[in-house]
Amino acid sequence: MRLNLLTLMEVAATLAFALSGLLEAARKRLDAVGVCVVSFLAAFGGGTLRDVLLDRRPFFWVEHAWWLWALLALCTVAMLVMRARHLAVTEVAIQWPDMVGLGLFTAGGTQLALQHGMPPIVAVLMGMVSAVFGGVLRDIVCNEIPSAFRDHRPYAVCSFIGGWMVVGAQTLEAPSWLGLAAATVTAAGLRALAVVLDYRLPAWEVGADRTDRRDR
Amino acid sequence: MRLNLLTLMEVAATLAFALSGLLEAARKRLDAVGVCVVSFLAAFGGGTLRDVLLDRRPFFWVEHAWWLWALLALCTVAMLVMRARHLAVTEVAIQWPDMVGLGLFTAGGTQLALQHGMPPIVAVLMGMVSAVFGGVLRDIVCNEIPSAFRDHRPYAVCSFIGGWMVVGAQTLEAPSWLGLAAATVTAAGLRALAVVLDYRLPAWEVGADRTDRRDR
Amino acid sequence: MRLNLLTLMEVAATLAFALSGLLEAARKRLDAVGVCVVSFLAAFGGGTLRDVLLDRRPFFWVEHAWWLWALLALCTVAMLVMRARHLAVTEVAIQWPDMVGLGLFTAGGTQLALQHGMPPIVAVLMGMVSAVFGGVLRDIVCNEIPSAFRDHRPYAVCSFIGGWMVVGAQTLEAPSWLGLAAATVTAAGLRALAVVLDYRLPAWEVGADRTDRRDR
Repeated sequence: MRLNLLTLMEVAATLAFALSGLLEAARKRLDAVGVCVVSFLAAFGGGTLRDVLLDRRPFFWVEHAWWLWALLALCTVAMLVMRARHLAVTEVAIQWPDMVGLGLFTAGGTQLALQHGMPPIVAVLMGMVSAVFGGVLRDIVCNEIPSAFRDHRPYAVCSFIGGWMVVGAQTLEAPSWLGLAAATVTAAGLRALAVVLDYRLPAWEVGADRTDRRDR
Repeated sequence: MRLNLLTLMEVAATLAFALSGLLEAARKRLDAVGVCVVSFLAAFGGGTLRDVLLDRRPFFWVEHAWWLWALLALCTVAMLVMRARHLAVTEVAIQWPDMVGLGLFTAGGTQLALQHGMPPIVAVLMGMVSAVFGGVLRDIVCNEIPSAFRDHRPYAVCSFIGGWMVVGAQTLEAPSWLGLAAATVTAAGLRALAVVLDYRLPAWEVGADRTDRRDR
Repeated sequence: MRLNLLTLMEVAATLAFALSGLLEAARKRLDAVGVCVVSFLAAFGGGTLRDVLLDRRPFFWVEHAWWLWALLALCTVAMLVMRARHLAVTEVAIQWPDMVGLGLFTAGGTQLALQHGMPPIVAVLMGMVSAVFGGVLRDIVCNEIPSAFRDHRPYAVCSFIGGWMVVGAQTLEAPSWLGLAAATVTAAGLRALAVVLDYRLPAWEVGADRTDRRDR
């Protein structure tokens, strides 16, 4: 039962990530190929980058290739039925599964990196990469500065803090499921809190300098 | 004889890909280094990304390092003799070898992925990556949304369809050269058809919403 | 003693690279996460990309994970004390350690690639990747065309020339430290010369054509 719930949460989270790519692609007026690729990157880009850095194979979407068909179906249906008025609604709707994904992928990624013998700080960063860099790749391909790096709402930070729970659990020799649960709840919870309170990280007020490399 | 023709086609196709990078670099007023790097990415970026994902070494341009000298020569000559009036001509001239490349690299990439034990859908995607992502990396470095994702003319789609020929041939236990030929002809042919008929994939009319993440 | 000096030079160079990312992040008004990630990319992105291409593990920042803490500290301090008026100063201050880095990372990267059995031209390119592509990734994430590809001051070119010193030393069976030293001095020296004389590579004057893919 616990397993089934977990699977359900993972599916919901992955779909939420994919939909965030779909929305971005729609905003950018990409064609069908662009929509599918960007959704794929948003959903699996982070985990894939983590696996490339850990030199780990096979990728999740190679082991579970049916996911690729699922994404293809999701994008096709979306392109057929989704209209402008649906975008904002979807954006709100995916907020919550997106938080769950932030938590789950942080926990899973950190755990995986520790199993690959990474030092704590690296493992935590790998968890962050798994959870956050799908969105980063999505934004780079869409020619945006990644929102995770400019929008001051805490997102990657929640993942960074959550990851330490897995490390902590391992250090205290607590059962790994406990560390995973704690990391998921911490990362997702902090993100939820930040959204509910609309909290922003203090901006770095460098001041008026706007020198742009292009102008030099 | 057949082999020599094939080699000739591959060389022509690779040069066409490199020239597409060269044109983009010229448009963006890049310096000598930028011109060479972007041409390299356009020519070999797709295959290299595929090999990184398949964890396959050595890369094509490591095994055949003389190609790097050839690209260097190509870029040097181009920067010496090419002028604005040549750009449009070149763009038209490379259209046809580019189609050949789309076909050849799709077929080769899909075959390679199947040999690495990838499931069919993944193999087809790897073929698409080999054929299309050189151009994607070229556009990302040049700070554009990849044209393969925004220009509604079918390109990646032709590759996607072509790739299934290789999978089909393997499933029907047909000789692999047959599958490779069929994939090449299908992908290149569909692309040629799309260009000749100036066919566009139906756009996803999400409507008036233009919300840009930057504005939020 | 020599070793200690070398270590010192490497630390200074890496910090200079990190600061170049920090400055870019400040210009782009990134948030705390963006500042740290872009600094990390500028400092370690090049070497990491080289290691991914060479399929080499562990990465430098995994072996020396304390560097990640050092970068985190650097960014935190910078965000607390740095203001607009400091940006220009820093930019000038890092020019010199940056040249040292260009030399050191070129030499080290080329040597490493040769040890991995890469052909000369590939090894030299890997040296260039180690020294230059941190900045390239930094600019891509900040949604700029990499300055290494557009700013006509020789930078990657100095690295390219320097790398051949390592290859030459190996061919002449000279002691490897000699090749490393020669490469470092050549690359750093040429860059210094270019900066002091404000030399620019001749631009490729394609002419008035400004066709932008977006317009097509």
